Amino acid sequence: MNNYLLTSVITGLLALVFAFLLRKSIVKREIKNEKMKEISGYIEEGAMAFLRREYKYLAVFIVVVAIAIGVFIHIQTAICFVVGALFSILAGFFGMKVAVKANVRTTQAAEKSIKEALTVAFSGGSVMGMCVVGLGILGLGILSIIFDLDVTYITGFGLGASSIALFARVGGGIYTKAADVGADLVGKVEAGIPEDDPRNPAVIADNVGDNVGDVAGMGADLFESYVGSIISAITLGSVVNLTSGKEAVFFPIVVSCVGIIASILGVLMVRVVKGDNPQRALNIGTYIAGILMIIGTGIFSKIMFGDYKAFGAVIVGIIVGLSIGKITEIYTSADYKYVKEIASQTQTGPATTIISGLSVGMKSTVPPILLISVGILVAYYIVGGQSHATLGLYGIALSAVGMLSTTGITVAVDAYGPIADNAGGIAEMAGLPENVREITDKLDSVGNTTAAIAKGFAIGSAALTALALFASYAETVKLQTIDLLNPLTLIGFLIGSMVPFMFAALAMEAVGKAANQMVEEVRRQFRENPGIMERTVKPDYKRCVDISTQAALRQMLLPGVLAIIIPIGMGLLFGTEALAGVIAGAVGTGVLMAVMMANAGGAWDNAKKYIESGVYGGKGSSAHKAGVVGDTVGDPFKDTAGPAMNILIKLMTIVSLVFASVIATYGGIITNLFK
Amino acid sequence: MNNYLLTSVITGLLALVFAFLLRKSIVKREIKNEKMKEISGYIEEGAMAFLRREYKYLAVFIVVVAIAIGVFIHIQTAICFVVGALFSILAGFFGMKVAVKANVRTTQAAEKSIKEALTVAFSGGSVMGMCVVGLGILGLGILSIIFDLDVTYITGFGLGASSIALFARVGGGIYTKAADVGADLVGKVEAGIPEDDPRNPAVIADNVGDNVGDVAGMGADLFESYVGSIISAITLGSVVNLTSGKEAVFFPIVVSCVGIIASILGVLMVRVVKGDNPQRALNIGTYIAGILMIIGTGIFSKIMFGDYKAFGAVIVGIIVGLSIGKITEIYTSADYKYVKEIASQTQTGPATTIISGLSVGMKSTVPPILLISVGILVAYYIVGGQSHATLGLYGIALSAVGMLSTTGITVAVDAYGPIADNAGGIAEMAGLPENVREITDKLDSVGNTTAAIAKGFAIGSAALTALALFASYAETVKLQTIDLLNPLTLIGFLIGSMVPFMFAALAMEAVGKAANQMVEEVRRQFRENPGIMERTVKPDYKRCVDISTQAALRQMLLPGVLAIIIPIGMGLLFGTEALAGVIAGAVGTGVLMAVMMANAGGAWDNAKKYIESGVYGGKGSSAHKAGVVGDTVGDPFKDTAGPAMNILIKLMTIVSLVFASVIATYGGIITNLFK
Repeated sequence: MNNYLLTSVITGLLALVFAFLLRKSIVKREIKNEKMKEISGYIEEGAMAFLRREYKYLAVFIVVVAIAIGVFIHIQTAICFVVGALFSILAGFFGMKVAVKANVRTTQAAEKSIKEALTVAFSGGSVMGMCVVGLGILGLGILSIIFDLDVTYITGFGLGASSIALFARVGGGIYTKAADVGADLVGKVEAGIPEDDPRNPAVIADNVGDNVGDVAGMGADLFESYVGSIISAITLGSVVNLTSGKEAVFFPIVVSCVGIIASILGVLMVRVVKGDNPQRALNIGTYIAGILMIIGTGIFSKIMFGDYKAFGAVIVGIIVGLSIGKITEIYTSADYKYVKEIASQTQTGPATTIISGLSVGMKSTVPPILLISVGILVAYYIVGGQSHATLGLYGIALSAVGMLSTTGITVAVDAYGPIADNAGGIAEMAGLPENVREITDKLDSVGNTTAAIAKGFAIGSAALTALALFASYAETVKLQTIDLLNPLTLIGFLIGSMVPFMFAALAMEAVGKAANQMVEEVRRQFRENPGIMERTVKPDYKRCVDISTQAALRQMLLPGVLAIIIPIGMGLLFGTEALAGVIAGAVGTGVLMAVMMANAGGAWDNAKKYIESGVYGGKGSSAHKAGVVGDTVGDPFKDTAGPAMNILIKLMTIVSLVFASVIATYGGIITNLFK
Repeated sequence: MNNYLLTSVITGLLALVFAFLLRKSIVKREIKNEKMKEISGYIEEGAMAFLRREYKYLAVFIVVVAIAIGVFIHIQTAICFVVGALFSILAGFFGMKVAVKANVRTTQAAEKSIKEALTVAFSGGSVMGMCVVGLGILGLGILSIIFDLDVTYITGFGLGASSIALFARVGGGIYTKAADVGADLVGKVEAGIPEDDPRNPAVIADNVGDNVGDVAGMGADLFESYVGSIISAITLGSVVNLTSGKEAVFFPIVVSCVGIIASILGVLMVRVVKGDNPQRALNIGTYIAGILMIIGTGIFSKIMFGDYKAFGAVIVGIIVGLSIGKITEIYTSADYKYVKEIASQTQTGPATTIISGLSVGMKSTVPPILLISVGILVAYYIVGGQSHATLGLYGIALSAVGMLSTTGITVAVDAYGPIADNAGGIAEMAGLPENVREITDKLDSVGNTTAAIAKGFAIGSAALTALALFASYAETVKLQTIDLLNPLTLIGFLIGSMVPFMFAALAMEAVGKAANQMVEEVRRQFRENPGIMERTVKPDYKRCVDISTQAALRQMLLPGVLAIIIPIGMGLLFGTEALAGVIAGAVGTGVLMAVMMANAGGAWDNAKKYIESGVYGGKGSSAHKAGVVGDTVGDPFKDTAGPAMNILIKLMTIVSLVFASVIATYGGIITNLFK
């Protein structure tokens, strides 16, 4: 039986070897232009400075939480937690290290052709993708072998991944927007210098932010979903008896391995197809991976269970994931009516721009919720039928695993975007000819679409993963029902529903505070060093990087601590059922807020770009100014508060799962008073 | 026993007689100024034009729904439905009829003194308040006598009230904001004429809107909560056996009667105290009513049940209601830090203004949710103890009744605001001296605070009422549990959570569309009739009133139909448990969105006013411009989409309750396919 686990370790190693080879193909390209080398050096240095500082915070955090887990739960769970945290850190570290190297080499490749540039940028993204899935399955495989598949321990791995995701995604989201807003507000608006101008002291921080937020943040987010979905499927699989053996436990691992192989082949296809149309190449790669995945899962479902039920649940997940991605595009791309509607409302000023963007965001929650609902029903009934509840929940977990099985290529396609974006920035700063910038712009615009789709996918997968973990929690604390007529569940539910609102408010305020500090610093440098504007003195990039780094890490502490304290506290005070209500409520509003904020933000962004293409007076018109207001409101929506929701709901759920035994034993302090 | 019901009829009649006397005291004041008479004539005409048109729509709606209820449920339920609808219409009609008469008489009284003006304006509001509670308890009392307290029939009364609230609150909300935005955008911004200038063709529609949205809309909203909470308490009271008799059924009716008497005495106190400080007079009246209410309820709790448990639940409701009101003030008044924070953010432009307002709105959800949660727990355990679930739910329903018991004076205090506001408008239009406007402005500013508090109160009471109705629904369809581990409940919950987002989007878009039509019309009149600006030609006020009326009633149809179709549809397709999930989800996000939108809107409004008081450059500064953007975004938030949430969650719940038997019998069409 352990053949399955062994296979998972081997597949994980295979993905890492593939990542290593891709990395080699990137770094072997030597940078010839001295100026580009210098700029890329700053970015690399800034990114590493952020990571180093983050690691200091993380070290303290990991040690404290590990001790708490060791004391209150099990030492083995603490070990899994530490491994999960370290593996997530490693994935982020490798991915970012290569991404910052790929940036400048993409710029250089763009001097030759769009094909070359696509190859480099996509290889860079693929390293991140392969590290995420490779380390994810490797860690789970090794720990499963060591701890003989005991889920009470292995859930620690998921908590480790979630904790790092919190720092990477929320901290990264604050970092990138603080730098972005700071750079724009003083550089573009006050000093009147163009975007990515090397005289802007915040320009390096801005570029670092793209890597920190969009590459490492998204990677950690999907790493968390990836391992979380597998863990929930293993947890539920270990309590159902589909066959005489442990097939239900191994199947999710097998599905993930098939997904990794499919992703590797998909990535290779992109390199083969390439051509002048980067969107087409990326699509073909993604579709090939999907098809291979479907074939492989069908075969294993038949072999392991003798039927295609489990296969059906996996397919449902894949279809729901792809559909949510596609729908996200409809609400956020200027090719469709919603963005055009917002653009048309810019003519009557910023107020109508904001109102219409918010309505689009709110409306856009309808299709994903319906899709997830259909997915839940179908997955539940295919696997569980009418009678077997746990089996049905296992079906839901399998569909989450299915949705995330091709995470390898999904992250690759997504992380390619910020690399192309940064490549354009470097071209600008190094003063390369117009045609280079044109190529990077083309790659970047494809990247914007893929980023929007990936955001939708990240939300959908977070929702399904959180629901699967929620079911695992209920199973673990032996809740037969989670009853909303119980007043404890009801108040848990109300409070849980409120948490995402509070968390979103804190995240947005954090951006505001961090951005203000950045604005002050950039103004100070311009004031005290007039030489900067005359290009005689280099601005102090490092100071701006420091400010963004510090502010990001500090501002994320309060929301982060709340996300951990609230579920544990509610469980201890009001018991396991109240906690179940908390999670359900948080997942409900969390998903809605995530969709609303991501899509409103994306739609405002593209409405502004649509106007810049020459509609309603184009750049500089009053419509454009209103569009910029929408875009600025949308920035913390789509890059900080929105994505933070994914982390929040998964973290709250996995915290509950890990601390389930403690809460089941000691929970309900207040309610016991009434007894 | 029927003594209780007889008392309720008598108390209801008493409230109506008091309303009639108040009305008489207002209309006996003769208007001397011809110009004022003319203007007030336009407003009255416009308001009645809206009502007449609304009644046409309503007649069709009531007949269709009554037939549906008669065919599918019971003819008796249909009769109760029609009576509920008619009584709500009557309350709105009387209230508005008097409000438009009180407007102009307040202006006239302000020529004498602030005391006089307060008396008239508050008397006007009190008529609305007394009509709401008087007709509410009268209708319930009579129908309870006729149908011998059979709740399957009497729930129809609640549905009737809810349906009218939908038209009055959502339609009224669209009306008032369309007129407001239209008047401001063309009049103030484009033509450069001051607010309330009689040359503006939309000015009368704007003034009518204040009555339609703020007086009739709020009245219908609270009428719905008022009767809904009593019905849910009666429903749950009829299945618990607290005593050998039917005391549990009669107690909520007694509480309401005590509340009416207390409100009448409170209203009289305001007239006695008056003085130069209107806020103080209103507060004293409200407190007196509260204290009388508490004493009376305590006595009856002891008499009817022999203990103070039921009294405790009622008190909890009153405390929670008052606290939510007070907290609303903290988040929306310029005396506290949140509004100042937003004002400070206006300095960096509209984008930061919007972001900070949204954060304040989101953060402001925390205290009300915690208060409601504490209220639920305490009310449940005081009455129900640990063992008796239905009894605990009855406790929650009692606390809703308690919160709403002093609705009479709450509506009076709230409806006084728009009357004072309109009085100011009339002073402006009639060209009265500055000191008159100063007095009405002072009354108006007190009115803004009371309006914000009333909004918070309306949300809190809607939440508690909806939860109580939710419990009644579960009891009626005999659901022992509402289990979130059941996939049907889960998808119901997800879809229900999404409905308020969709509804809010539709409501905000409706305002946009209606406002656009108004803008076109005002522009057309200015263009085709240059004499208007030169004051030689009267603008066509009627046409603008017509446009607002038509647009409001048309635009509310889709969201209105959805609010009715979704619960019935979900119940028929997926069964009673899925429908329970839908309601729970909708109540959860509905309350959050209501609080967020109302408070963000209120905070933006007051941040703008705070700047106008001279901070950050005062009127005309760039900070003020950013503040205006916030205020404009906040308008549909606080006056349309936000209040619409209250109606939505109550309507969805009462629809489920009324159609409970049909859904229990025929529900689950899709799920039955799997069986």
